[in-house]
Amino acid sequence: MTNFDLNLPTQIRFGKKREEEIGSILTQDNITRILFVYGTSSIKSTGLYSRIISILDEYKIEVVEYSGIRPNPLVIDVDRASELGRKSAVQAVLAVGGGSVMDSAKAIAVGIAHKQKIWDFYNGSQIKKALPIYNIVTLAATASEMNGGFVLTNSETKEKLSLKSELTKPKVSILNPELTFTVPPNYTAYSAIDIFAHTIEGYLTSTKSPSFINLLKESVIKTVKDKTELILINPQDYNARAEFMWAATMALNGTTNLGLDGAQFPNHMLEHGVGSIFNIPHGAGLSIVIPAWMRWYKDNNRPQFLRLFKEIFNKESLDEGIEAVENWFHSLGSPIRFSEYNIEESSFKSISEKAYKQAQMWGIDKTYTKEVIMEILLLAK
Amino acid sequence: MTNFDLNLPTQIRFGKKREEEIGSILTQDNITRILFVYGTSSIKSTGLYSRIISILDEYKIEVVEYSGIRPNPLVIDVDRASELGRKSAVQAVLAVGGGSVMDSAKAIAVGIAHKQKIWDFYNGSQIKKALPIYNIVTLAATASEMNGGFVLTNSETKEKLSLKSELTKPKVSILNPELTFTVPPNYTAYSAIDIFAHTIEGYLTSTKSPSFINLLKESVIKTVKDKTELILINPQDYNARAEFMWAATMALNGTTNLGLDGAQFPNHMLEHGVGSIFNIPHGAGLSIVIPAWMRWYKDNNRPQFLRLFKEIFNKESLDEGIEAVENWFHSLGSPIRFSEYNIEESSFKSISEKAYKQAQMWGIDKTYTKEVIMEILLLAK
Repeated sequence: MTNFDLNLPTQIRFGKKREEEIGSILTQDNITRILFVYGTSSIKSTGLYSRIISILDEYKIEVVEYSGIRPNPLVIDVDRASELGRKSAVQAVLAVGGGSVMDSAKAIAVGIAHKQKIWDFYNGSQIKKALPIYNIVTLAATASEMNGGFVLTNSETKEKLSLKSELTKPKVSILNPELTFTVPPNYTAYSAIDIFAHTIEGYLTSTKSPSFINLLKESVIKTVKDKTELILINPQDYNARAEFMWAATMALNGTTNLGLDGAQFPNHMLEHGVGSIFNIPHGAGLSIVIPAWMRWYKDNNRPQFLRLFKEIFNKESLDEGIEAVENWFHSLGSPIRFSEYNIEESSFKSISEKAYKQAQMWGIDKTYTKEVIMEILLLAK
Repeated sequence: MTNFDLNLPTQIRFGKKREEEIGSILTQDNITRILFVYGTSSIKSTGLYSRIISILDEYKIEVVEYSGIRPNPLVIDVDRASELGRKSAVQAVLAVGGGSVMDSAKAIAVGIAHKQKIWDFYNGSQIKKALPIYNIVTLAATASEMNGGFVLTNSETKEKLSLKSELTKPKVSILNPELTFTVPPNYTAYSAIDIFAHTIEGYLTSTKSPSFINLLKESVIKTVKDKTELILINPQDYNARAEFMWAATMALNGTTNLGLDGAQFPNHMLEHGVGSIFNIPHGAGLSIVIPAWMRWYKDNNRPQFLRLFKEIFNKESLDEGIEAVENWFHSLGSPIRFSEYNIEESSFKSISEKAYKQAQMWGIDKTYTKEVIMEILLLAK
């Protein structure tokens, strides 16, 4: 078990109707003017938007709005929202949405505080401050609600990159599983795969994973796998949505990734390469690269691969295990080959270049040269 | 899954040599004068005391010392230490020790801030402030390093009671598993039983325990059971001590006790009754009352009992399961009957009265009348 730090400053308010507390939470923190960031019109059609606006109004909190954050959120939106927030002198950022909105809110909180374009920070500028961030979560997947990471896509340079800071850990995150009832089956599946990825990255790349951490990670995966099945049958199964939602947070809030020796995130590195160029859902990108990466990497850490396949899929061999992963992804309706998105081999060179930049940023194992990345991508042709 | 809040403000610094950071941590927090609280001479004989003093000296942090905190820590020590800390105008409390020392440090931090006798707060006074608390942990068991709870014994009124507050959650806790190498086999066993108790209390009393929480709790118990065995063979097994230590924290830092419906702590209630009158180790008290409570309670929650016994002890029936728990405790060298401590039936009435007061304070299920408590105690005769 390697040395670690654990800092979890984010306060969690979990459960039914908890979003109603947003007014009192902000008031208690002396916040009187916020930037309200959200995505598409979905929070309007569910009525969530107007409920939040009326609560904020009741507490006399001034609201400046920035809407239209896209899946695979863009630098251009973050810079525009930061500009708006700065001009309006907001004191905090409130994100209402899933990972894309929460990630954008973090970047906006940094952008406003620094009066600087956000991409500078992906090119070496140091994050020294950020406005406080509050979340009302409507999609469970990324754990962005309880960590400091945020992924943006730069459509000019065609790069999708991730950054993190202690300063972008949210102040308060509200998780009401009922708000995820409307997440459609395909996005529920992509979310399940994202959570699976967050869990196995460290599990399979660490050669000395503590047995306690193995058990915690297996608890996350078993929960997500079981609850996804229940959710796909009944999208309004509160307990299934609740356990899925909390497992998503625990998968990447720090508590299940501690004391790992040499843990890396190669699958996210590969997916960021794909996402740099193709605007496909993050979880779908992961479900294409994971089986390929497993085939390429498996012999480097046979005991952990065998343990995963036995514990989760009840399979005894590496090949059967990888096939079981593919079958699970496919059964959820997620792709496992690039061809299913009509992404052709001719794009692999650009993907590998983009992924390579992420690998370098993360200081990931030097074995991931552009050539190696190409080799892995070809396994997912 | 019931609604819950999760606030984990304590920063964890885990691993080898981390205690060397105490000077820089306090300096960063602008602390220049501390009350250094510890127990017996054991931190002197291991050299830890002089190492810490020399680090604090290097950082020019003034040290006021209060030593002699006992297992089952006493109100009288807390009041004396608070008086000393107040007179010396310390800015923070540094605990170096196990649960007794950390619990005392919390009470002292409250006592200094309020200029009030600590027992007032066990009789209804509200905790409104506390000095910041820092820990260097030398015994892994109570998770006091990452929660707000503290248990004290009042030798005048013969009461052992627990209290908790958000304000007594430590600022920083340093956990170096090497500092637990010298914990003797009997205290390693008592600690294992305390962690087991923290985990099963909610698990067995909640009738709708979320399956994710069940899995997390089983991860804690499996880890503690396996690692205890390794530690008893080789007390200097770093990885075993490390996993044991971190599992202890996770057992009661909040993360594995979330969303439980109607979770209660009857075994701790019973043990506080015992501890009010007899100065025996907390874990030993628990190992006496747990099997008795299990026999008395088992039919109220058969599915969870059966699950626990199957998952942890590979037993298929309630009776075999309880026997397996007893055998495990005994194999660790811990008592399972009052008679092993020469505690006679004539004391049960006083024990039940003390336990009943704790039950009332916690608002625990009204079924725990004094008569019921007597009935349970008799099962452990």
